[in-house]
Amino acid sequence: MRMLGVTMERVAPGEVELALPFRADLTQQHGFLHAGIVAAVVDSACGYAALSLMEPGVAVLSVEFKVQLLAPATGAWFRARGQVVRAGRTLSVVSGEMRAFGQAPESSGTDEGDVVTLLNGTMMTVRGRPDLAD
Amino acid sequence: MRMLGVTMERVAPGEVELALPFRADLTQQHGFLHAGIVAAVVDSACGYAALSLMEPGVAVLSVEFKVQLLAPATGAWFRARGQVVRAGRTLSVVSGEMRAFGQAPESSGTDEGDVVTLLNGTMMTVRGRPDLAD
Amino acid sequence: MRMLGVTMERVAPGEVELALPFRADLTQQHGFLHAGIVAAVVDSACGYAALSLMEPGVAVLSVEFKVQLLAPATGAWFRARGQVVRAGRTLSVVSGEMRAFGQAPESSGTDEGDVVTLLNGTMMTVRGRPDLAD
Amino acid sequence: MRMLGVTMERVAPGEVELALPFRADLTQQHGFLHAGIVAAVVDSACGYAALSLMEPGVAVLSVEFKVQLLAPATGAWFRARGQVVRAGRTLSVVSGEMRAFGQAPESSGTDEGDVVTLLNGTMMTVRGRPDLAD
Repeated sequence: MRMLGVTMERVAPGEVELALPFRADLTQQHGFLHAGIVAAVVDSACGYAALSLMEPGVAVLSVEFKVQLLAPATGAWFRARGQVVRAGRTLSVVSGEMRAFGQAPESSGTDEGDVVTLLNGTMMTVRGRPDLAD
Repeated sequence: MRMLGVTMERVAPGEVELALPFRADLTQQHGFLHAGIVAAVVDSACGYAALSLMEPGVAVLSVEFKVQLLAPATGAWFRARGQVVRAGRTLSVVSGEMRAFGQAPESSGTDEGDVVTLLNGTMMTVRGRPDLAD
Repeated sequence: MRMLGVTMERVAPGEVELALPFRADLTQQHGFLHAGIVAAVVDSACGYAALSLMEPGVAVLSVEFKVQLLAPATGAWFRARGQVVRAGRTLSVVSGEMRAFGQAPESSGTDEGDVVTLLNGTMMTVRGRPDLAD
Repeated sequence: MRMLGVTMERVAPGEVELALPFRADLTQQHGFLHAGIVAAVVDSACGYAALSLMEPGVAVLSVEFKVQLLAPATGAWFRARGQVVRAGRTLSVVSGEMRAFGQAPESSGTDEGDVVTLLNGTMMTVRGRPDLAD
């Protein structure tokens, strides 16, 4: 995530927001942010959201996720939000989205942006693996 | 894909293979290749596979995809394969996988690697947009 | 849907709710409503929701959907809600859920029930096929 | 499944096939087998396949699945196949399909049918719940 220039915007129990500036080198051939990069960032937001509800010393792994690409990811910057829909002992159901904003974060004001991607997934709590602990 | 060091290994009608060397800077916190990077590469392989069956002058866009992460993506290098399951006029159903190999490509011989990720998705043919043509 | 005893509770542009009474003959071996039956009903709600935003004379077909089963579907009755997240000319992105209620509909009052299943899918508008028109 | 007229055709470790005769009362408004019914039967085949690799006394539950509807489910009968892609202690990755056949089973001979639906899902082993044991 560091390589992508992603920063953490907000962390609350079960909800995390990440910000991603537009970068030409992350676009695919059409000038949009690559679908996989979008998936990576929203998946990360969801993983952190799941982790925020787990006990210390555990790790979180993505079991599976589905992304739906509603619109091309074009914009000045992007916000990925991850939320926990249901936290279980072993599995957590998460839901996330990526929104695109036309203006820089400091000028975005009350702009809510446009949803460009939805993600729905399953995260797993990994216990007894201190080497993996997040 | 260039930024990730991905190279095209094989292109056949409806099937594309991409190779990705292991790079420490693409791993997430546990030393595995990040799930989103894996998704990005397999999605690209599937997109190229779909495009290989389309008429010239069109573009391909991912509508949605699901990834299932079977095992941590660790290894010396990775191969992503994308295949077209059904090619329609507007929508194509694609299926892909990522395999991890313990040794460098030139030493991998008959090693078939281990499947670390499955992807199942839907691609759309975009016509009448020469600005997007692949 | 008629065979399942499903009734339409509410239709608004882009949103449909269906009600399903509990029936012992629809349960799987554990006494829960079968996952596939749940999927069928929520998929129907989403299909009707998508259709509610389309022009007359067209048909709607499910391209794909994913269901996540959050909890066993037990209860006195169930409500499936389908919503359109984004309506395109050819494809619509839909999202749905099934909620379980412990008491009969007439006694449920302000009970919001428990979400037992989430569905996220893609619907397609089929034109020029009056034989399929919904 | 009994209500649907489904019969078990083949059980092998990690693979199960179910047969479903065409029934007019299971079709949706267009005369195709309803997508949810297709999902229900393929999900069942996958659940049985996962169970075939588990130790006695446990139960299997679907965590999530995605279905892709390649073609309308029309035909004289249908075969659902479920396979285990990876069996883990808690989670199993499964993959399934539904094929449609134009002629009755006894006349189908070497006909391989047409794939109408793909399913990719995750099953969970439930231990310590003898009341649920399959």
